[in-house]
Amino acid sequence: MFKHVISIKDFSHKDIDLVLGQADKMLKILNTKGSSDMLHGKVLASLFFEPSTRTRLSFEAAMHRLGGSVIGFSDPKGTSLKKKETTADTIRTVAAYSDIIAMRHPMDGAAKLASDVSTVPIINGGDGSHQHPTQTLLDLFTIKKELGTLNDLKIAIVGDLRYGRTVHSLVGALKQYKADFRFIAPELLKMPEEYKKGLKYDEFTELDVGDADVVYMTRIQAERFSDATDYEKVRGSYVITPKTLSTMKKKSIVMHPLPRVDEISWECDADPRCVYFNQAFYGVPTRMALIAMLLGVAK
Amino acid sequence: MFKHVISIKDFSHKDIDLVLGQADKMLKILNTKGSSDMLHGKVLASLFFEPSTRTRLSFEAAMHRLGGSVIGFSDPKGTSLKKKETTADTIRTVAAYSDIIAMRHPMDGAAKLASDVSTVPIINGGDGSHQHPTQTLLDLFTIKKELGTLNDLKIAIVGDLRYGRTVHSLVGALKQYKADFRFIAPELLKMPEEYKKGLKYDEFTELDVGDADVVYMTRIQAERFSDATDYEKVRGSYVITPKTLSTMKKKSIVMHPLPRVDEISWECDADPRCVYFNQAFYGVPTRMALIAMLLGVAK
Amino acid sequence: MFKHVISIKDFSHKDIDLVLGQADKMLKILNTKGSSDMLHGKVLASLFFEPSTRTRLSFEAAMHRLGGSVIGFSDPKGTSLKKKETTADTIRTVAAYSDIIAMRHPMDGAAKLASDVSTVPIINGGDGSHQHPTQTLLDLFTIKKELGTLNDLKIAIVGDLRYGRTVHSLVGALKQYKADFRFIAPELLKMPEEYKKGLKYDEFTELDVGDADVVYMTRIQAERFSDATDYEKVRGSYVITPKTLSTMKKKSIVMHPLPRVDEISWECDADPRCVYFNQAFYGVPTRMALIAMLLGVAK
Repeated sequence: MFKHVISIKDFSHKDIDLVLGQADKMLKILNTKGSSDMLHGKVLASLFFEPSTRTRLSFEAAMHRLGGSVIGFSDPKGTSLKKKETTADTIRTVAAYSDIIAMRHPMDGAAKLASDVSTVPIINGGDGSHQHPTQTLLDLFTIKKELGTLNDLKIAIVGDLRYGRTVHSLVGALKQYKADFRFIAPELLKMPEEYKKGLKYDEFTELDVGDADVVYMTRIQAERFSDATDYEKVRGSYVITPKTLSTMKKKSIVMHPLPRVDEISWECDADPRCVYFNQAFYGVPTRMALIAMLLGVAK
Repeated sequence: MFKHVISIKDFSHKDIDLVLGQADKMLKILNTKGSSDMLHGKVLASLFFEPSTRTRLSFEAAMHRLGGSVIGFSDPKGTSLKKKETTADTIRTVAAYSDIIAMRHPMDGAAKLASDVSTVPIINGGDGSHQHPTQTLLDLFTIKKELGTLNDLKIAIVGDLRYGRTVHSLVGALKQYKADFRFIAPELLKMPEEYKKGLKYDEFTELDVGDADVVYMTRIQAERFSDATDYEKVRGSYVITPKTLSTMKKKSIVMHPLPRVDEISWECDADPRCVYFNQAFYGVPTRMALIAMLLGVAK
Repeated sequence: MFKHVISIKDFSHKDIDLVLGQADKMLKILNTKGSSDMLHGKVLASLFFEPSTRTRLSFEAAMHRLGGSVIGFSDPKGTSLKKKETTADTIRTVAAYSDIIAMRHPMDGAAKLASDVSTVPIINGGDGSHQHPTQTLLDLFTIKKELGTLNDLKIAIVGDLRYGRTVHSLVGALKQYKADFRFIAPELLKMPEEYKKGLKYDEFTELDVGDADVVYMTRIQAERFSDATDYEKVRGSYVITPKTLSTMKKKSIVMHPLPRVDEISWECDADPRCVYFNQAFYGVPTRMALIAMLLGVAK
């Protein structure tokens, strides 16, 4: 089995099923007793070399729900790490204090580097524009729990498909489950060719979700556009509203990795198909599963 | 019973007595075993959108003394929350990770807003100039423990009575216990009419504590004065010294919400009537009581 | 027995042996069960008025491994402590929330001051250029574990021997174990006379470790030199490389308080004599021992 969680590309179909199976067991724990003592006495180091409050709190909640403890930092500013010490030395030191490390780092490849020197398992909580494998796994878990299956789904992915790390990883993973994709993006932010290889897909520049089972919404950032008017136009037309929802199937879901700004209107939140806060919640059992598997207390 | 702790105004006389009764039980736990496993496996999210080290550590100590765990942040700077996400979305997300949320926010009404969207109980740890109900409850608990009763006391309140949030809440709560007030403030910072309605009170501009049972001292901030000389004069004359203490009754107490700067001189600290550090301590059992009550493990 | 840990000077030979004996027991716990419930329900306040990620995480890991909980802050910026409150008041308040306080402070003597006002034990995690006793104790524990004894060793100490706080404390402690010292430093940064009194020692300006049992390496900071060329020269010649290692005895060790920048080359890390990451690890059982002894659960 995997010894670290660095990239979703390292996860076979079987690995993913294994993780989601464990996540399901963790979900049962959360929904019944609320927590477990499985990792009593164990220590997670939560090292955020770049702030990410949501991801950090999710990892830390996961560790606490397993009965373990947490040490760490939420931001390298205000730590002594701004000194010239290498990340490798920091990791080797913290590995001496802890049983497992969850980390986010602004540099591509930092998590892989960490796993090369660490004496304890590393979980990548996002490294640069590179990988964010626990996001992908929680996205898959969300789809499975909300729709009952991952197989043969129609998935509309909306927004910045060119630069979106989350989206590229998700597409790579869903490919193994024979998804039928609907890529919805402005011309400038279309899905790059390399990620479309071997996929069944259609492309759209208008926000037309068709008969999608899943609408996966992402944010479009102003920085991508050189012309502010172009940005405003795109921004205005890539918004999920109750009207959008009214065209969607009864059994379908709207997802979002959060934070959202205004790309899903507030009036949508009450619709049971809008599952983005459930999705945030599913991050906890997913991360519990990974931590427990890496520490050998769940197989 | 109350489902959130947003404003002291929501607390009836009976609610307050209930909380103080529970706080007393928590105090016994602290003074005997030191802690409990009542909330083993539960997670408190401690969200400080504005720093307040004292209040934060008190809440977190309270949760740990109940056997629970804590996630959170101490400052929005150095988190990813400075992005454009709404507080409502942050709360909904964190509510998916935790069993209860204690929060401080610079914006008036933020705690109420949070309670409207949260799926878990919210405790207001201070919102803007608005409310800080746990401070009021711990003040009441302190008076009760130190003097044996809350009823029919003579309470001198000193300092910035015009803008002081703490003071307004305390006066509102003590009103229900038939307090006889002595408002001591410079002309500029007198208690506003609206808070004096229905009270038994006298007003003074000199620091004359009379035969008060409780002297509640607060800090006067330079910003309130347009003329620095006026400020220096006031500042110099509103200081509790051993001389002030010498005029006070044997059975009386000096309180302060802390931090103090120089409005109570250091030589006073050794006097057993100066109970401000006890007051800080009483915050822990008070917050333990609130957390346990909101989570349904204490009634 | 000691009630606080403020300065290594307060520790007799017997005290040190006592601490190292306890640290050995803690090491056994870490190497077998991984943790203990000895301090279940207890709260450590970890107050870093100056950031020091390594030291902080080590203390917090130690407390968690003993089954206790942690509250605190990692940096006074982003706390409300930048206000004018005195350190004494902060300590007295936090002492009301916790069972023991570990603190780092930029001001010489801050830990002693804290111990004068605190109602709970204080452990100094470094105060200004003054004292860092837990570093010294973990250094001693490392030598004992790696070489089997502290007695009659040949100790080479390299780098900034003039200003290095760590080094002065270590020399003072090892004196009691009849060490034979080899002080290796550039002219400008030689060991001050006051620390050499009563010692058996030789002095060198070249990096010649001789037949040392222990090579204790420290960093030389650019700020110490008025002339950048002088600094570069020293910096280049005070580097441990595989070549240095090749001249060393088979049974010897290289230590470093970390963080290192480039004063020990990366190729050395694989050599089993380079024990600086073990040294970081030994900080955990050493601090566990101190916390447990101060709280009276280990004698």
